[in-house]
Amino acid sequence: MKKYILIGVIFYSQFGFSQNADSVVIKKIVDETMTHSTAYQNLRKLCKQAGPRLSGSPAFAKAVSLVSAMMKVVKPDTVYLQQCMVPHWVRGEKERGQIILSGGKKYDLNLCALGNSVGTGAKGITADIVEINSMQQLIELGSNGIKGKIVFFNFPMNPTYIRTFRAYGESGVSRTRGPSLAGKYGAAGAMVRSLASNLTDYPHTGTTVYNDSFPKIPAVAISTNDAEYLSSQLKRQKVKGYFRTTSKMLPDAVGYNVVAEIRGSQVPEEIITVGGHLDSWDLAEGANDDGSGVVQSVEVLRTLISLGIKPKRTIRAVAFANEENGLRGAQKYLEEAKSKSEKHLFAIESDAGGFTPRGFGLDMPATQMQKIFQWKNLFYPYGVYDLSAGGGGSDIAPLKAIGTALAGLIPDSQRYFDIHHAATDVFENVSERELNLGAANMAALIWLVSEYGL
Amino acid sequence: MKKYILIGVIFYSQFGFSQNADSVVIKKIVDETMTHSTAYQNLRKLCKQAGPRLSGSPAFAKAVSLVSAMMKVVKPDTVYLQQCMVPHWVRGEKERGQIILSGGKKYDLNLCALGNSVGTGAKGITADIVEINSMQQLIELGSNGIKGKIVFFNFPMNPTYIRTFRAYGESGVSRTRGPSLAGKYGAAGAMVRSLASNLTDYPHTGTTVYNDSFPKIPAVAISTNDAEYLSSQLKRQKVKGYFRTTSKMLPDAVGYNVVAEIRGSQVPEEIITVGGHLDSWDLAEGANDDGSGVVQSVEVLRTLISLGIKPKRTIRAVAFANEENGLRGAQKYLEEAKSKSEKHLFAIESDAGGFTPRGFGLDMPATQMQKIFQWKNLFYPYGVYDLSAGGGGSDIAPLKAIGTALAGLIPDSQRYFDIHHAATDVFENVSERELNLGAANMAALIWLVSEYGL
Repeated sequence: MKKYILIGVIFYSQFGFSQNADSVVIKKIVDETMTHSTAYQNLRKLCKQAGPRLSGSPAFAKAVSLVSAMMKVVKPDTVYLQQCMVPHWVRGEKERGQIILSGGKKYDLNLCALGNSVGTGAKGITADIVEINSMQQLIELGSNGIKGKIVFFNFPMNPTYIRTFRAYGESGVSRTRGPSLAGKYGAAGAMVRSLASNLTDYPHTGTTVYNDSFPKIPAVAISTNDAEYLSSQLKRQKVKGYFRTTSKMLPDAVGYNVVAEIRGSQVPEEIITVGGHLDSWDLAEGANDDGSGVVQSVEVLRTLISLGIKPKRTIRAVAFANEENGLRGAQKYLEEAKSKSEKHLFAIESDAGGFTPRGFGLDMPATQMQKIFQWKNLFYPYGVYDLSAGGGGSDIAPLKAIGTALAGLIPDSQRYFDIHHAATDVFENVSERELNLGAANMAALIWLVSEYGL
Repeated sequence: MKKYILIGVIFYSQFGFSQNADSVVIKKIVDETMTHSTAYQNLRKLCKQAGPRLSGSPAFAKAVSLVSAMMKVVKPDTVYLQQCMVPHWVRGEKERGQIILSGGKKYDLNLCALGNSVGTGAKGITADIVEINSMQQLIELGSNGIKGKIVFFNFPMNPTYIRTFRAYGESGVSRTRGPSLAGKYGAAGAMVRSLASNLTDYPHTGTTVYNDSFPKIPAVAISTNDAEYLSSQLKRQKVKGYFRTTSKMLPDAVGYNVVAEIRGSQVPEEIITVGGHLDSWDLAEGANDDGSGVVQSVEVLRTLISLGIKPKRTIRAVAFANEENGLRGAQKYLEEAKSKSEKHLFAIESDAGGFTPRGFGLDMPATQMQKIFQWKNLFYPYGVYDLSAGGGGSDIAPLKAIGTALAGLIPDSQRYFDIHHAATDVFENVSERELNLGAANMAALIWLVSEYGL
């Protein structure tokens, strides 16, 4: 009996001491970030000096040089580029579009070409509009109901989903797959309700994906306010639509991942990656998507270096190329890892906005997840309480193929889809403290993984 | 043994069933709010049609009529006013101020009179500036160091406090008590660094409290950017300050609490209050402070009524008068409760901004707190996980004297003090989904208390 008690006490003390010592380091990390972070100033530079920075654009090249410089300022062991070829889509002239009511009355639409979509040609497209509220409905209408028409995909985001990414995923099929399927049935074009959680006049762009077996038709996003109006008119009368876009895909261009690295002091061969993506849509400053993730990743390094922490494992901050319309940077990062036989222990991405953090989503074997769960209480004072399965990010996802444990920062998602892929995703819509708190929690998690492995 | 197991099973099942049935109702409540809330439109009206609405102002009267109308729209059993006398402070002419460096170079300050403060007189005040970083330092300097000078209270909010209200509380003494104490030592005036969590050009006003035993000196808030600049100059040279304010306290004016009530169907004598305050500072639209709390309280009633829920207990939404500079509405509400021998079971206030909710702070006996803790998992899907001791709100605090259990909504606090009491606290800085999610969680808690008591 006495022996058992003794073991219990020692065990408790060790655990208590360890957690306590860790919590002291983590408090230092968080304090450093909340007090001296340069993430917000870096984000301002990225948004205002580079600005919208779609893959292949001069602004993307400018962003590469800005972020390289930001990384060098924090004095990691090395900063380097990984070159890759990226799609080079251009929007062309400002889009125009209207709906024409039965009496001939015209109503101008707030619209924009969807990313990767083909243009209409100089004359534009004019056709009757047919509204679709589910992919099943499109299939049922088939060629008879669709041919020669403009298909209006009206898939509002479900407001009852508190995790708004769920609503984005459900309604998102209208944008990603809708136009191509409408092309299969002979549609002349596609108008897609913007994937926005609010009623607004701003159209939200984003990728549409063509199936190469089907005819490629031009596709635009219209604002949610316009979608509501169009839908209300279609309940009463036939409505014609018109739009003109000159967007097109050019030959692939050169892009870069930008990488900063602190070499591990004890287990340098094990690599931990923290990243976001450097490209943004061409209509947006890409402050939340994903300038935030980029500057937070740099801030993780800055914080650790400023505190004089020598991480046991190698830590890399990566600004990935081409997340929005190709994922070529992500593929390149995996290729490099494979060709150098690198051991990638852990990777975390911040690509859900620079909002106040609530958790980490985890994608790894149960034994590793359990280890991270044990650290849960260490994050609680800093607003992170939700450690759960299912996470990662588009840019780190390929690393799963080489056994890397993946995680994603989960910020509060209520505001994200108000501004996502729209002209309203600007620096001014990021809160400095929220941005820093996300960086601080990632730095804490990365330090723990570096210290204890997985 | 068998008997024990049986009891265990029944108990478990009942608990399981109950929580499950409750979670179904709560999902209906949240879905209704997230889908059909009118809180955001109501907030727009309050901010744009009434606007800044300090006690005693015509705008406050306008706000009373707007909120009465909003309440009537949702068709509660009754809407009524509680009249009370409120302080009537006016800012007067636009304030002016400068610092004058040794060489005579002048630098204009972004400043505003503190609420309730006396004016300088037409000529303003010119005096040497002395910087103070703690109340202890002020006391140590005493009359010798202070007399005839302008005391510059430079108490930055501590950026490492994740709960920013803690930093506000710590630094807040500079604004609330600083000027009066400086007056005791013969200071000519006080300049207080704005209680802001960011570096900005906007001054943040707020109440200063005079001790009637000390001379009352004029007091202004200067922007955090100006405070940084002034402090940096004071490290190098003597600096003179000048400011001119014409603010003054007028005789008390008439104010009102606005109350909407749903009569309880089974225990009508037990009253549950949900509230926010109707007044705001005169420089701000008072969107987060505290238009949010007002429209959320109305939304709680709207949601329950729309769903056809007949609460067992009486539920009141209250828009309190005069939180910012007097708390007369709060006192009036208590007086009415006492004079009518009302039984106030529970009261919750939302007065920490319309941001994404994280928890409820609870101020009540342990047995009641335990009951609410049992409901914790019911809120988790909706972002509320932090149920902890310490909460309430200024307007409901007096109800403690008659044994009311108190609670406060805890929204995320990272953004609040960027805009609190400043011209930037406008409608545009509130997110519709965040606002609604706060209302939804309060409606759920109120429904539970109404259903089960405490």
